Amino acid sequence: MGGDNAPGAVVEGAALASRLIENPICIVGDEAKLAAELARHKCDPKKIELVHAEEAISGDEAPVRAVRTKQRSSIVVGMNMLKNGEGGVFVSAGNTGALMAGGLFILGRIRGIDRPAIASTYPILGKGVSLLVDTGANAECKPNNLLEFAMMGSIYMEKVLNKKNPTVGLVNMGTEENKGTTVLKAAHALLARNRDTKGGVRFVGNIEARDIPHGAVDVVVCDGYVGNVILKLTEGLAWSIFRLIRQKFMSGLLPKMGALLLSGKLSELRDAFDYSEYGGAPILGVRGALVKMHGSSNAKAVKNAIVKTLPYMKNEVVRHIESAILDLEVTGSLE
Amino acid sequence: MGGDNAPGAVVEGAALASRLIENPICIVGDEAKLAAELARHKCDPKKIELVHAEEAISGDEAPVRAVRTKQRSSIVVGMNMLKNGEGGVFVSAGNTGALMAGGLFILGRIRGIDRPAIASTYPILGKGVSLLVDTGANAECKPNNLLEFAMMGSIYMEKVLNKKNPTVGLVNMGTEENKGTTVLKAAHALLARNRDTKGGVRFVGNIEARDIPHGAVDVVVCDGYVGNVILKLTEGLAWSIFRLIRQKFMSGLLPKMGALLLSGKLSELRDAFDYSEYGGAPILGVRGALVKMHGSSNAKAVKNAIVKTLPYMKNEVVRHIESAILDLEVTGSLE
Repeated sequence: MGGDNAPGAVVEGAALASRLIENPICIVGDEAKLAAELARHKCDPKKIELVHAEEAISGDEAPVRAVRTKQRSSIVVGMNMLKNGEGGVFVSAGNTGALMAGGLFILGRIRGIDRPAIASTYPILGKGVSLLVDTGANAECKPNNLLEFAMMGSIYMEKVLNKKNPTVGLVNMGTEENKGTTVLKAAHALLARNRDTKGGVRFVGNIEARDIPHGAVDVVVCDGYVGNVILKLTEGLAWSIFRLIRQKFMSGLLPKMGALLLSGKLSELRDAFDYSEYGGAPILGVRGALVKMHGSSNAKAVKNAIVKTLPYMKNEVVRHIESAILDLEVTGSLE
Repeated sequence: MGGDNAPGAVVEGAALASRLIENPICIVGDEAKLAAELARHKCDPKKIELVHAEEAISGDEAPVRAVRTKQRSSIVVGMNMLKNGEGGVFVSAGNTGALMAGGLFILGRIRGIDRPAIASTYPILGKGVSLLVDTGANAECKPNNLLEFAMMGSIYMEKVLNKKNPTVGLVNMGTEENKGTTVLKAAHALLARNRDTKGGVRFVGNIEARDIPHGAVDVVVCDGYVGNVILKLTEGLAWSIFRLIRQKFMSGLLPKMGALLLSGKLSELRDAFDYSEYGGAPILGVRGALVKMHGSSNAKAVKNAIVKTLPYMKNEVVRHIESAILDLEVTGSLE
């Protein structure tokens, strides 16, 4: 029931996904509404189950209070199914804060993880994606949080996004190790010390923001404030550039003809920035495969979020994080 | 003597600028080298003076130590000329840290300003620029620093970039006033309280990074870490997109023909992101018109930095900041 286009886009996306994967899909929410939507789409009825939840948490509700008081909301019902093993992955376009709060209170943190984080795929033009952690769960971070983000992001990158031995970079104001805030300096030291340990990450050092778009590293680590800025600035700037391209190319006869000849290529370019291509954003560090979708997800984005994050469960990302955290060396950190 | 292309690009840029402005220009550095470069360019000898400085501070020297020990470096000599009124604006492509240190130790801070900041113009596609403060001088900020950045940026925007009553936004993870870190929440309250005071700024509230590229506000306020990320990510992403456009448009015969028809428009698009168009970045809060250029500035960038930042002196930005800081209300801030 969450997101701007619920339940229509969610039901349609689930129907589309059900044709692509073997696993059955449970849709949680107002059963009458869900059934009405589902009737509009072709799908195998054995592969989609409706689970009734009579409440819904809206986008502007205070998250902790909402999760505590709305026990029959689609988020809380779905999260409990995940906890009880009645589902393997829980995907939602709902209130991000409520998903985080539900993750913490219902699923619980993985032992040893101080702060769960949201990880978002970042499109590298012409060659796949990087993973950006954290993109909004933790505005303020301690050095050990950044180390945990690096480890969890590396595991997700390898197990779900199929990148062997992913490299990790810390977003800073320069590449020298003594750059940036007190927290960044300590995080650099902590990441460097863990580079060659069991469970350690393949840390290549500080990176500057200008190197993110061309894929300098596979896992980009930063606090949630900076990660949010990176994600949203990229969205806004890509949108501005494409708008300007359209304007420029539509002024004058020759440019218009040129634009016609190029229209296929222009669409390819836009697709590279289409977040609906890349599936959802995993919330890493909780005891379950919890995935956040963009609030404005359409059916295609929902389909991709379901299909592309299945390996979060199948490849046992949670178990791998549980194991790796035991091998990280955090002693000596400033925090 | 500073920057990747010194002294060639600096001398050529000064020669170009001298044809556009009335004010005489002093070039500080190794006189023999400067004279040899200058001989290659047409200019009125009465309008360019060479000032000898036998030392130079390189890009990788420790700033404070360099400024203290190299009294005959071009940065220290030039900064002293600015202090003594022998020059009205000092423009340099040299070591940023040394410029900041020189600004603090030689010029001194404006009374009441806690932390000087670097302000960079940010191109709004199709309609001028915003001003981003701080872009790297202060990785960590207190709420009152962000208030000072807002005030100084507003004055520079109005007096130098000719925008009357500029609007101010605080970069945050959402537009609600309770978003973000402890510092951001306190900064929001402080900016809001000063909105309607004498010397106050036209604060419109928090903005998300996605709204920066289309010019949601005139003055974009954030700490130097985030400002640096915004500036460099924009550079890197624009560069990646243009490279991809070139690749896409050069594959296949029809696209190639289209690209030919569009080549003029594509250059216009690239120019919108050409930082050399916009002049230098003022260091605000020191007692003098001090301007930092990009280290890789070419002659055109140097020319623009000289010509476009003249109003920093002529329109008495320093005096306006000295006056406005007295009217700001910082009591009650968390810091």
